[in-house]
Amino acid sequence: MITLPFAADVYAGRLERARSLTRASGLGAIIVGPGSDLAYLVGIEGDTIERLTALVVPADGEPTVIVPRMELAKLRGTAVSALDLRVVDWVDGDDPHGLVLFALPSAPSRIGVSDALPALHVIPIGDRLGVRPELATPVLREGRMIKDAAEIVELRRAGAAIDAVHRRVPGMLRPGRTERDVASEIAAAIVEEGHRTADFVIVGSGPNGADPHHEVSDRVIEEGDIVVVDIGGPVPSGYNSDSTRTYVVGTPAAEAAGRIEILVRAQQAAVDAVRPGVTAEQVDAAARDVLAEAGLADAFLHRTGHGIGVSVHEEPYIAPGNPLPLREGMAFSIEPGIYFPGRWGARIEDIVVVTADGCERLNMTPHGLTPAG
Amino acid sequence: MITLPFAADVYAGRLERARSLTRASGLGAIIVGPGSDLAYLVGIEGDTIERLTALVVPADGEPTVIVPRMELAKLRGTAVSALDLRVVDWVDGDDPHGLVLFALPSAPSRIGVSDALPALHVIPIGDRLGVRPELATPVLREGRMIKDAAEIVELRRAGAAIDAVHRRVPGMLRPGRTERDVASEIAAAIVEEGHRTADFVIVGSGPNGADPHHEVSDRVIEEGDIVVVDIGGPVPSGYNSDSTRTYVVGTPAAEAAGRIEILVRAQQAAVDAVRPGVTAEQVDAAARDVLAEAGLADAFLHRTGHGIGVSVHEEPYIAPGNPLPLREGMAFSIEPGIYFPGRWGARIEDIVVVTADGCERLNMTPHGLTPAG
Repeated sequence: MITLPFAADVYAGRLERARSLTRASGLGAIIVGPGSDLAYLVGIEGDTIERLTALVVPADGEPTVIVPRMELAKLRGTAVSALDLRVVDWVDGDDPHGLVLFALPSAPSRIGVSDALPALHVIPIGDRLGVRPELATPVLREGRMIKDAAEIVELRRAGAAIDAVHRRVPGMLRPGRTERDVASEIAAAIVEEGHRTADFVIVGSGPNGADPHHEVSDRVIEEGDIVVVDIGGPVPSGYNSDSTRTYVVGTPAAEAAGRIEILVRAQQAAVDAVRPGVTAEQVDAAARDVLAEAGLADAFLHRTGHGIGVSVHEEPYIAPGNPLPLREGMAFSIEPGIYFPGRWGARIEDIVVVTADGCERLNMTPHGLTPAG
Repeated sequence: MITLPFAADVYAGRLERARSLTRASGLGAIIVGPGSDLAYLVGIEGDTIERLTALVVPADGEPTVIVPRMELAKLRGTAVSALDLRVVDWVDGDDPHGLVLFALPSAPSRIGVSDALPALHVIPIGDRLGVRPELATPVLREGRMIKDAAEIVELRRAGAAIDAVHRRVPGMLRPGRTERDVASEIAAAIVEEGHRTADFVIVGSGPNGADPHHEVSDRVIEEGDIVVVDIGGPVPSGYNSDSTRTYVVGTPAAEAAGRIEILVRAQQAAVDAVRPGVTAEQVDAAARDVLAEAGLADAFLHRTGHGIGVSVHEEPYIAPGNPLPLREGMAFSIEPGIYFPGRWGARIEDIVVVTADGCERLNMTPHGLTPAG
């Protein structure tokens, strides 16, 4: 049984906004499959893969939820039941893709589908409707990107919870322990400090820190190691935390200490650049330029950040080539990193929320190379 | 670092077969995103969502892997490196969908995409190539559906491992314990008995057993409860187990005992129906007819089974309306269930592999209502 984090009228408002944006964009309907878009709109992620679960929102008309009969019980307590949305169930052997037509007041000439809908459903839905599906991203991200006051409260809660974990990390990182061992203790702390689950725990020590998406290994942490710790998960409302700090066990090499000071300046430069009207690529460039000036351009392998909310990665992406102007209420990470293959890496990550004249930072633990061990 | 379960030439053979089936089906190329299709072909699932990772297999030409530069390290030890496949990496800000064209010897007029590829990639790839993507399912399932001898060894290993867990379940199901508590102990046993992880643990006691996809809750198990336990996960090679047994804590109501005897007969009838040339829907009907004759047609809410291999649910689906003829080497579940909302449910599930003249059953624990507590 789901407990909705917000009152039912919040979901009613989100659905109505999605409907009106669908109409404004010229789409006849949007079709939202399992994933964070569904969680945002009706409070449940959905979890079937080969069996179709979808929310159909026509530009003109009432929304309908298509769901396998055996999953019906999972709708209890969600906005689907709270708002008494129309539900059409089906059983194995039926044609669930044909039901999408049944959910529409008229055959549309254009439809949008949610980002995460798998090809397995995208293609037969397009075939049944005789249209070439488009991405519903412009419609769905418009609601999800701009966090309202209640959502920002949840993101602050998530930020405080993960900060509490980071404050415990220096006591966990000791020479002789494996990354895996430390990661288990961190995962338990993530839950203890108020998260529903530990969604990801990256402990990248020494050369493993040079791989931005390294998770954990059986490597034994040694004296002098630089260790990247990137952690997060959802608080009970489903809103996520995500924060990275870089620790040193004992005394770092002078080169590493100096480069990490530059990384901290790059991260701060990007935070300082955030305000309404500035573009996502300008914020990315603010961090990138500091690193480039110090000769570290090639060490920065990824974008500066990603939006966050009911999913860990969402719009807006703070990346080269993204001309999106920032607006008040957008929430995203600022996380430049530097990576030296075979040797070490470092990354510093905060979540920020765009305010009327700058941003609010949601992660408060010290940003520099943090002593541990 | 990945350790491939099979020698590199097994993957070379799978890739060559996919290429030749691509050509035979008239497709110019298939594009395989993260998921079990990728694991089958090159030994790694891939895990990016918004960043494109894809294997491009042209009908004529060499395969190419497109991968974010920050994920390059994850290819070490996979068939991508073992077979020295061409790799094209990209960084945030590049146009990864445009790279698909670069991976093709010529612009195709038809392309296939893997089932799991999200709309986020399906639609821009179609746009860049100027084609309407089709499902690559017919090409990919042909290889995956028919298990070779080495794959059957792995499925047998998985079956024996989950049987070892089911033999321990009667000692865990005691009145006064919660479903969640029992599920934690089962999850630990799944790993102890040789699985890489506990992928799913359903403990549906009393009325919760009437919801086929109930997972666990804080319900306290009571004397007289019927309890559905549906569990599985991958063994180290990535091949999955999946077996369901129905237990009773103490003495069951006479009605339940009688109905579960009928369910066991229905499950056996479907197992008995399996042999090459029989269709998937005929196997489904074999179980369904036994239940219908006993007046239990409406209590059986789902299909009889699903294929299994490197994913838990895959082709062939043993469902009404599926005319697919069975062939030697196909592996799938036989799992009829009966569900009485608000009261109780039962399901019995074995994995079977089609042999030259019938099938081999991979789960050997007793099928009837099993005493526990």
